[in-house]
Amino acid sequence: MKKKFRSSCIIASALDLIGDKWSLLIIRDMLLFEKKTFKDFAESDEGIATNLLSTRLKMLESIGLLTKRKLPANKKTNVYLLTNKGIELAPIIMEIVVWSDRHVREEHSEMNAYDRSQNKIGMIEAVQEAYREFIRKTIA
Amino acid sequence: MKKKFRSSCIIASALDLIGDKWSLLIIRDMLLFEKKTFKDFAESDEGIATNLLSTRLKMLESIGLLTKRKLPANKKTNVYLLTNKGIELAPIIMEIVVWSDRHVREEHSEMNAYDRSQNKIGMIEAVQEAYREFIRKTIA
Repeated sequence: MKKKFRSSCIIASALDLIGDKWSLLIIRDMLLFEKKTFKDFAESDEGIATNLLSTRLKMLESIGLLTKRKLPANKKTNVYLLTNKGIELAPIIMEIVVWSDRHVREEHSEMNAYDRSQNKIGMIEAVQEAYREFIRKTIA
Repeated sequence: MKKKFRSSCIIASALDLIGDKWSLLIIRDMLLFEKKTFKDFAESDEGIATNLLSTRLKMLESIGLLTKRKLPANKKTNVYLLTNKGIELAPIIMEIVVWSDRHVREEHSEMNAYDRSQNKIGMIEAVQEAYREFIRKTIA
């Protein structure tokens, strides 16, 4: 079996879990857009291949970033929800947004707008609280 | 040629540039450990393959995260230094450290310690200032 962690570095170890091109985008879809089904994720603009999506979801579940469950009202469709470990990725995603707005926009003119006047910490908390409320309503 | 950006998403676009398993580790080596030569990077604990390292360095230079130059005292060895665009990745790296300390440590007992009592914003500024001073001394 492949070793899970490349080194004892605290940064490398995190990237061993979430440092690929797709994991953080699935987390983004859940946290910011409240997507929750395989079909939801597959429809995102980046066009992830379904086999890759399937592998990523299993991996993210295995490392405890999300849970997979069925809801009473629909016994056929799996619903994916972030755990606290996943929700707490919000500050990393926020800093990616800030850096991207400042340094990537210049070479990517079609990039979505970002309101720089917003308070960063307030936005992170609002996103996390909104997602927790979304979980409560979804599993109610 | 492969399209550079997968979508207009501000998060995905940043990950299109730095969202692989190695780029942020090279940035870490530069910013936190003041590594500056190919040999320095190749010796890191994660054991990056030299062909991969070579590709990554070229890519990071092409997107303006680092510059490659020779120093007057040594005309043979290439020296890699972060640009401002690269130095400003510090807040992302800091949030990765915080998340990793809180959520990855439990499954990775050999992970390096992190002093939680430190002020986050102060640490980011100190790291960036120290690296800017390192650049000044290196190219002086």
